[in-house]
Amino acid sequence: MAYPTVSGFSVKDIRFPTSLEAHGSDAMHTDPDYSCAYVIVHTSDNNLSGHGLTFTTGNGTQIVVAAINGLLRVVKELSWDLETIFSNFGEFWRKLTSDSQMRWLGPEKGVMHLATGALVNAYWDLWAKIEKKPLWKLLVDMSPEQLVNTIDWRYMSDALTKEEAVEMLKKRIPFKERRIEDLKQKGYPVYITSAGWLGYSDEKLCQEALSKGFTRFKAKVGKGVEEDLHRLKVIREEIGPDRILMTDANQVWDVEEAVDWMKKLAEVKPLWIEEPTSPDDIMGHAYISEQLKPYGIGVATGEMCQNRVMFKQFLKSGGMQFCQIDTCRLGGVNENIAVMLMAEKLNIPVCPHAGGVGLCEMVMHLSMFYYCSITDSMENSTEMTEKAIEQWEYPTGSEWQKLFAAGTFKQEY
Amino acid sequence: MAYPTVSGFSVKDIRFPTSLEAHGSDAMHTDPDYSCAYVIVHTSDNNLSGHGLTFTTGNGTQIVVAAINGLLRVVKELSWDLETIFSNFGEFWRKLTSDSQMRWLGPEKGVMHLATGALVNAYWDLWAKIEKKPLWKLLVDMSPEQLVNTIDWRYMSDALTKEEAVEMLKKRIPFKERRIEDLKQKGYPVYITSAGWLGYSDEKLCQEALSKGFTRFKAKVGKGVEEDLHRLKVIREEIGPDRILMTDANQVWDVEEAVDWMKKLAEVKPLWIEEPTSPDDIMGHAYISEQLKPYGIGVATGEMCQNRVMFKQFLKSGGMQFCQIDTCRLGGVNENIAVMLMAEKLNIPVCPHAGGVGLCEMVMHLSMFYYCSITDSMENSTEMTEKAIEQWEYPTGSEWQKLFAAGTFKQEY
Repeated sequence: MAYPTVSGFSVKDIRFPTSLEAHGSDAMHTDPDYSCAYVIVHTSDNNLSGHGLTFTTGNGTQIVVAAINGLLRVVKELSWDLETIFSNFGEFWRKLTSDSQMRWLGPEKGVMHLATGALVNAYWDLWAKIEKKPLWKLLVDMSPEQLVNTIDWRYMSDALTKEEAVEMLKKRIPFKERRIEDLKQKGYPVYITSAGWLGYSDEKLCQEALSKGFTRFKAKVGKGVEEDLHRLKVIREEIGPDRILMTDANQVWDVEEAVDWMKKLAEVKPLWIEEPTSPDDIMGHAYISEQLKPYGIGVATGEMCQNRVMFKQFLKSGGMQFCQIDTCRLGGVNENIAVMLMAEKLNIPVCPHAGGVGLCEMVMHLSMFYYCSITDSMENSTEMTEKAIEQWEYPTGSEWQKLFAAGTFKQEY
Repeated sequence: MAYPTVSGFSVKDIRFPTSLEAHGSDAMHTDPDYSCAYVIVHTSDNNLSGHGLTFTTGNGTQIVVAAINGLLRVVKELSWDLETIFSNFGEFWRKLTSDSQMRWLGPEKGVMHLATGALVNAYWDLWAKIEKKPLWKLLVDMSPEQLVNTIDWRYMSDALTKEEAVEMLKKRIPFKERRIEDLKQKGYPVYITSAGWLGYSDEKLCQEALSKGFTRFKAKVGKGVEEDLHRLKVIREEIGPDRILMTDANQVWDVEEAVDWMKKLAEVKPLWIEEPTSPDDIMGHAYISEQLKPYGIGVATGEMCQNRVMFKQFLKSGGMQFCQIDTCRLGGVNENIAVMLMAEKLNIPVCPHAGGVGLCEMVMHLSMFYYCSITDSMENSTEMTEKAIEQWEYPTGSEWQKLFAAGTFKQEY
């Protein structure tokens, strides 16, 4: 395999004015403008570039852009060629996240880690394109040793060692081909949240989703017990007793409040309550899980879970019955694989978080890889069209200029 | 009290080239340039401005500056006058940390929370100056109800409620005046780390500190067991058997590794091991604490502990025998008070982290407040001189320009 050389990077702030119609609204995030910090790794081959992004919700995307530019300094100082990066990806990842000076700003969390995810995923996209495979196939075709080599194993050994991971992956090899066939035949199950954004009126609920054949539904809760119960009853009636209903509180409650509130919603039979309290509260989630178990309600969380160290504890403590990885909240594909492996060892199913800019596209690859190569229990890149970038780059894009001119939005900076 | 109006803000990137002499080096941070993101809240009174900062270690300070500017948008949109802010400080704090769009970038952690700390502390500095008191005295003079009103109580009620906190504070009121007298007479105990920075040679160890009368010493460990043991034995010999020796690993170990390593260093009788593993690993710290208890070694952590939700769990789980708050890693004075109150309820002593730019100055105020108003068991502002700012603002300051011209440093951006 001949690798091109990296010729430069572009980092862009791309925003979509989704707040205008309350798409994506929830109890904590009342008016998101779905956005992303977007990275392009350019190469000596004009037809070959790697694209990565991290989902954001509008204001502040410029901070993530500044963070990505900060990480690019580390990449440039390191000046590894692509072959060195891909054959030592775990080490490259650690160099990015452990820079002696910038580590203080995280470590491995928040803005810095969102930036890491975007940048690292741009390299993964480039690698897949060089290998002329979709990302999921690149992952599925890798040997167990190659896969574990992409991971930074620091802080994980009390849950899973590199050697254990290799053994786990080897055991799944005989099933790989059949799983790939399964995917081609049957696809991969998904659920829909857009049925129940908090900013939507009752009339919008469920109708479109049902008509499209969805069988799993998620509704936002947390505005008020009575209001929630009303909405959930409407949804349960629309979808019938057999389809799956999930609830999502987006972190609005304190620990005891979460338990009390969900007991009152138990009658609509939710499969899970997602993000009942602070995403940092491992012990709180473990307590809520224990209290809601008799009601048949599980706890799902992870979309704001900052790194593999937090996931390790959620998985070990019983604080998470459904593990929701986020493809770019975590530090890219590498750390997502680490978390999927720990979850598999601890028998917790992985249900990736999606719905934001680029997340649905990325999540498919991880889900397909998970199904083929990891667990016992589909072709896109996250590349944006040039036209979309020209229109929605913030604040210079043509569509944003129109929105500023019309007074619909005020320019942030 | 007549309050001035806020007339504007300055945000600066200030760096000092400490890497040139290995000041502040440790196992994870080999060449820090001690720096800060610095905020000034200007008012209608030219002689009155509030100054706040967050400590950083060089590269990346510009990302925190971008984050502070992002938060200033929220402050400007809110446009509360100072009286409204100070009498609803907890609510103001929540507005800053819960902005519907920027919340995704944390929440309450890393870059965004460092920015919150700097900005919020600038308001505290301003408030103290308006009241013509040093910060610690402003805090000590506040009523229990006023104090708890500065805190955002979300996510804390399973450890401590607002009402419990008021009761705790009321019980301490009769002792306040005597404690203030105590401080004036005897001062407040401190320890010194500069004796044992990893980048220092053996000869530098301890001599200066002993000659200044220090009785508590902290040494960095984590380079290698044999090397660490050698250094610690030198220090123990220099300081004698009775002075207190603490060790600090700055997060280099995995969980089991930390236990094994510290058992080998137990012979030099360290009081604590600080940051044995990932600052996010609550369960790991609890396990290490349990394993090292028979050796008389406690676990200290907190300088990279991101918020009150993490502290709550460290304190409840037994993962922390010494609670090291950081005045600007946490979201400013407000959240530090919250953590000190939880620690007091759970009988864990608070030993603030200091040593970085501005931290020593800020920590004194919190320590004196803690001693006078919270626990059972001194006058500065963090304002920098105009000259220091002119010299060390990055990258335009006169001293940085000299360093770039001499080729000692390459300009980052």
